Amino acid sequence: MPRSFDYFFDFASPYTYLCDSQIPALVERTGAEVIYKPMVLGAVMVGAGNSPPSTVPAKGAYMAQDLPRWLKRYGLPFEFNPHFPVRTIFALRCALVAMEEGGFDDLKREVFRAVWAEKTDPNDVEAMKPVIARAGLDPDHVIARTGEQPIKDQLKKNTDEAIERGVFGAPTIFVGDEMFFGNDRLDFVEEALK
Amino acid sequence: MPRSFDYFFDFASPYTYLCDSQIPALVERTGAEVIYKPMVLGAVMVGAGNSPPSTVPAKGAYMAQDLPRWLKRYGLPFEFNPHFPVRTIFALRCALVAMEEGGFDDLKREVFRAVWAEKTDPNDVEAMKPVIARAGLDPDHVIARTGEQPIKDQLKKNTDEAIERGVFGAPTIFVGDEMFFGNDRLDFVEEALK
Repeated sequence: MPRSFDYFFDFASPYTYLCDSQIPALVERTGAEVIYKPMVLGAVMVGAGNSPPSTVPAKGAYMAQDLPRWLKRYGLPFEFNPHFPVRTIFALRCALVAMEEGGFDDLKREVFRAVWAEKTDPNDVEAMKPVIARAGLDPDHVIARTGEQPIKDQLKKNTDEAIERGVFGAPTIFVGDEMFFGNDRLDFVEEALK
Repeated sequence: MPRSFDYFFDFASPYTYLCDSQIPALVERTGAEVIYKPMVLGAVMVGAGNSPPSTVPAKGAYMAQDLPRWLKRYGLPFEFNPHFPVRTIFALRCALVAMEEGGFDDLKREVFRAVWAEKTDPNDVEAMKPVIARAGLDPDHVIARTGEQPIKDQLKKNTDEAIERGVFGAPTIFVGDEMFFGNDRLDFVEEALK
């Protein structure tokens, strides 16, 4: 019986913001361990030959109807981010640092909130300092460590792994080899974990 | 309070086969009326600038994992159709004839079953005769009527309406102006109808 799942995410994806809000309760119900895999969604899409939904105008317009329904169901705050599509490599590297140093869960939650409810540009180092601090981490220390080669390499490695395993968007979860795409598949994830 | 919904469908879509199986129970629970809109999915995709999921190999591979999970949940039979991607214009015209003559619900169900559980080519007029007969309709009569201009015009009209209203795939449901894409949004459709 699988007791863990791989969770490929990028802060750039609003549906991952939705998904992420549901992970703590899922973990509590299943007792499963989450293996977090920060990845660069843009690179994964290019690698998979996929395009963002917003490149099809009708899909973009539909997302503007679909997203609020989920936000309401989950009770999540949302503000359209004027920096969209956001660049997240810096924030993803911060997440990898926090995975090593502790405070990852708090940092992940605060970055998602900053990007999707507070209009923060996650590529703006100054704007991200208070977000990192809110997670209980030392911004200057975390920021310095994002320049380290092993952190950069890990992000590249996760991204390559995602492409290799057939990921084409975010969020994507694996239970063993079984793949689940989207916050709207979390019920199937839960069934697979039980 | 909306007591009806517009349901744009094409027999060519496996996710519409899934969706369609759930419509009778949804109607029973909500008392809503279904306004059926047979449309040509391929033309809608072209009109919206969209492409079938299978054109991205990773998406195609994922569908092969995702579809069986839904089929199992819904308890539906499935056989991969060797004629896929199927041409459905003839079958959609049969559906429009049945909407005028009666027997539409039975015909729709039997065509979906023929395409997605019995490997039938819906563009093969001879192969479709027993399917039409199973719905209690006279195959020769229905087939003759598919050549009538008003039937052809209605299919074109529905397809144009779909594109105009922002449809980019199937199944797509509208409750008033609110759009819902996919069998995985039927719970939101139900909420909107209540």
